Amino acid sequence: MDAVSTAAIDRLRALARERALVSSSAAVIGWDQETYMPDDGYPWRADQLAWLSERAHEMGTSQEWGDTLAEAEAAATPEQKPFLAAMRRDYDKATKLPGELVARDAQASALAKQAWAAARKNNDFPAFAPHLKILLGIAQEKAECLGYQGEVYDALVDIYERDATAAKIAGLFDTLKPQLREIAAAAVAKSAARQAKLPPGPYPIEAQKAFNAEVAASLGFDFQAGRIDTTTHPFCTTLGPRDVRLTTRYDEDDFASSLFGVMHEAGHGLYEQGLPDAEFGLPSGDAASLGIHESQSRLWENHVGRSRPFWKKWLPVAAKHFPQLADISLDDFLAAIQQASYSFIRVEADEATYDLHIILRFGLERRLLSGELAVEDLPAAWNESFQDLFGSTPPDDTHGCLQDIHWAMGGLGYFPTYTMGNLNAAQLFAAAMQDPAVAEGFAKAEYAPLLAWLREKVHAKGAVPTPAEIVAAATGKEPSAESHLAHLQTRYVG
Amino acid sequence: MDAVSTAAIDRLRALARERALVSSSAAVIGWDQETYMPDDGYPWRADQLAWLSERAHEMGTSQEWGDTLAEAEAAATPEQKPFLAAMRRDYDKATKLPGELVARDAQASALAKQAWAAARKNNDFPAFAPHLKILLGIAQEKAECLGYQGEVYDALVDIYERDATAAKIAGLFDTLKPQLREIAAAAVAKSAARQAKLPPGPYPIEAQKAFNAEVAASLGFDFQAGRIDTTTHPFCTTLGPRDVRLTTRYDEDDFASSLFGVMHEAGHGLYEQGLPDAEFGLPSGDAASLGIHESQSRLWENHVGRSRPFWKKWLPVAAKHFPQLADISLDDFLAAIQQASYSFIRVEADEATYDLHIILRFGLERRLLSGELAVEDLPAAWNESFQDLFGSTPPDDTHGCLQDIHWAMGGLGYFPTYTMGNLNAAQLFAAAMQDPAVAEGFAKAEYAPLLAWLREKVHAKGAVPTPAEIVAAATGKEPSAESHLAHLQTRYVG
Repeated sequence: MDAVSTAAIDRLRALARERALVSSSAAVIGWDQETYMPDDGYPWRADQLAWLSERAHEMGTSQEWGDTLAEAEAAATPEQKPFLAAMRRDYDKATKLPGELVARDAQASALAKQAWAAARKNNDFPAFAPHLKILLGIAQEKAECLGYQGEVYDALVDIYERDATAAKIAGLFDTLKPQLREIAAAAVAKSAARQAKLPPGPYPIEAQKAFNAEVAASLGFDFQAGRIDTTTHPFCTTLGPRDVRLTTRYDEDDFASSLFGVMHEAGHGLYEQGLPDAEFGLPSGDAASLGIHESQSRLWENHVGRSRPFWKKWLPVAAKHFPQLADISLDDFLAAIQQASYSFIRVEADEATYDLHIILRFGLERRLLSGELAVEDLPAAWNESFQDLFGSTPPDDTHGCLQDIHWAMGGLGYFPTYTMGNLNAAQLFAAAMQDPAVAEGFAKAEYAPLLAWLREKVHAKGAVPTPAEIVAAATGKEPSAESHLAHLQTRYVG
Repeated sequence: MDAVSTAAIDRLRALARERALVSSSAAVIGWDQETYMPDDGYPWRADQLAWLSERAHEMGTSQEWGDTLAEAEAAATPEQKPFLAAMRRDYDKATKLPGELVARDAQASALAKQAWAAARKNNDFPAFAPHLKILLGIAQEKAECLGYQGEVYDALVDIYERDATAAKIAGLFDTLKPQLREIAAAAVAKSAARQAKLPPGPYPIEAQKAFNAEVAASLGFDFQAGRIDTTTHPFCTTLGPRDVRLTTRYDEDDFASSLFGVMHEAGHGLYEQGLPDAEFGLPSGDAASLGIHESQSRLWENHVGRSRPFWKKWLPVAAKHFPQLADISLDDFLAAIQQASYSFIRVEADEATYDLHIILRFGLERRLLSGELAVEDLPAAWNESFQDLFGSTPPDDTHGCLQDIHWAMGGLGYFPTYTMGNLNAAQLFAAAMQDPAVAEGFAKAEYAPLLAWLREKVHAKGAVPTPAEIVAAATGKEPSAESHLAHLQTRYVG
């Protein structure tokens, strides 16, 4: 390795490490805001987050960073080039956003999240609307700074998913929509005929906590470095190398909702804990994209968590925590957790209907960003689109356009990555199961081989290759919807 | 008010506000470290804290800060002078400490706290000793930077208590020691004769949490802005204006230990929540000293929490949470919570013996800092001094020199402020009770008048006057041990 380049790369790594100290400090503060912070802490907390975000942004866009990167590039060996190309992409993207805009964004979303939580609770969309308008304006400003070829949406989705565009997503969704509606309708009809149900609650919350933790640990989640807390909207956040915080919410009448939530977030957490420690804050230690991130959560939640082998092992354990499960058969249990029905709430939707929720949100946020849809008209547009896709109308905005935190966090262009995650999950899982050790472990509900496969093929890659490159290299095929549709067909229609 | 000066003061306030954003971010991160952070988070967390501490230090010692302060001073009106004098004192003190030393201190104490927790658990002083040596070295370096007239100790105690010196404290403690030993001996003998005991546990932890919160709220602690969590070593920390976090620990056999711990920390919290919001991060919004801080915690814990009127109201409430308390008489209950006995553990010590623990620690840390006592000899020296003061020897270092977190946090010179707090608490409480509304409220266990008195006479003052000035102005007398000794005599010897 060339000496000059090594020195420059070392300096670049040191700069990135310092920036990671700041951005991960913001992550701690954001985690506290969601989990434990008392209500009156908000205004000051928003200012703290703005300050830290602005510092991290300044650091990643500094002259020193740019010069060091250029120096490293000038003397790069072929092996160093992909890493430096990833650094360059991030730098160019970051330098296009003024620090003032980044700070304004952080502050506006901190306040908007607070307003959203109250609006959702009180079914009061007008109380949230002014915040959404501000965030849309900021998103449009960001898009103009970042630049785009087709439309505003492209610049935003690219933040979450490299190489995605509104037109490509619309094309994919237009193709998927009829097939998904057909699968959903068949699945819902099949479930309605069977009427499978889990025994009634209460499932005491303390027992749910204990069972969730036991399951998460069995997947490989490292509690020496991570933990699970309670929030309104479940999430996973990383506060330092391997310091991964999951959250969930509890319903005394439904242990499965919290359990699958935890398996989902643990999937994110396993990915974060599997990224190379020493590369924390660098593209080589960062998640490849949200579509890859979501593939990990969906894989563990759905392909593992709703499978027969998983419950063959875990149903008797669950029955120890929840005695009412002692008498249900494995078949009946599986029928209940593989049930399909139309839900107003995305996070409560089953696999068979989930992607329809994403198609709805993608259409609305694309129109909000283009200016075609006014914020005031969002509730009506939501309900209209819901009627079209699901054949019913939400009873109120809390069950409609106020249900998700994403827009309140400024996360416009984020939703399609969920469906990309579903597609990637199915494709990666099918490929992993070609490995005899993985398949054998899976049959016994032992997941070390599956985790090892994912660590090698996905986690260890960081964000140096593109999402599509990762999937293609891991599976030997270009990313497609094929495995996902086949999986839904097999499990839900049969 | 002079226009030039106002503009300069405004700029100074803006600089201080920005520094407060950074230092309060460090406080959030430190709180998480103590409450919820998984074990493996430590190394990265120490680096985060070091970065934030170094930034806050840089900001408070910048040329801009110094120039703006000088500009403000040059045009100050007489009313502005005390505020600017306090700013000047802080600035001069801060500029004497190099940023590198501040960062090294923060990082060393983060690692030392981790090592201390393990050493305390495993009764393994040698595992903690290297950390203590590093921290002593840093403390000595700090003292040399800050400067002192008499000895190293003076520079350190002055960080916590303005105008205190080792010689003055030694003089006070030499006078107090025989009187305190006499009171302690009489109190212990009286308690031993009476053998008052609370009914045995279990006192379920969930019930303790509920009762503690009810009591803290009744004192005026604002849970809209604050909360209570669980840690090994109880503390109170402020994460933003009025965002005050208390912690406690629970013992199923002893609800009183946790309750009085919460009343103590709530006393600190009431002070922090009573400091002027808009002055956050400025001397006018900062606590006057640790000796004043501790006066607030001791006042609520001891003068309120162990009083007859308090329990006349709260014993029946406690009995609802803990049915075993239903049959104990108020007299027997009071005898049990006003009991004196010699304890190895300072935080479990009663009022009558507490100050002897401080006298012990002051003597040892003074000798450690002067170099007269080697770290290796600390356990033996501790035990010898304990034998002298209490007439017994701790069974192990976990019950001896490893029991407190303070030295592991680099808090050398901190302990005497506890006894100063006791003296101030007694003097302030006696003065407050001269106000008829306070006395009337106290008799009914209604504390709004007492809190209002403290808010006006102590909390609202911030750190602009000296601790002695605050006590003298509030009580009409110079600070002395008189009220404290009288209180102990009345309550414990009679």
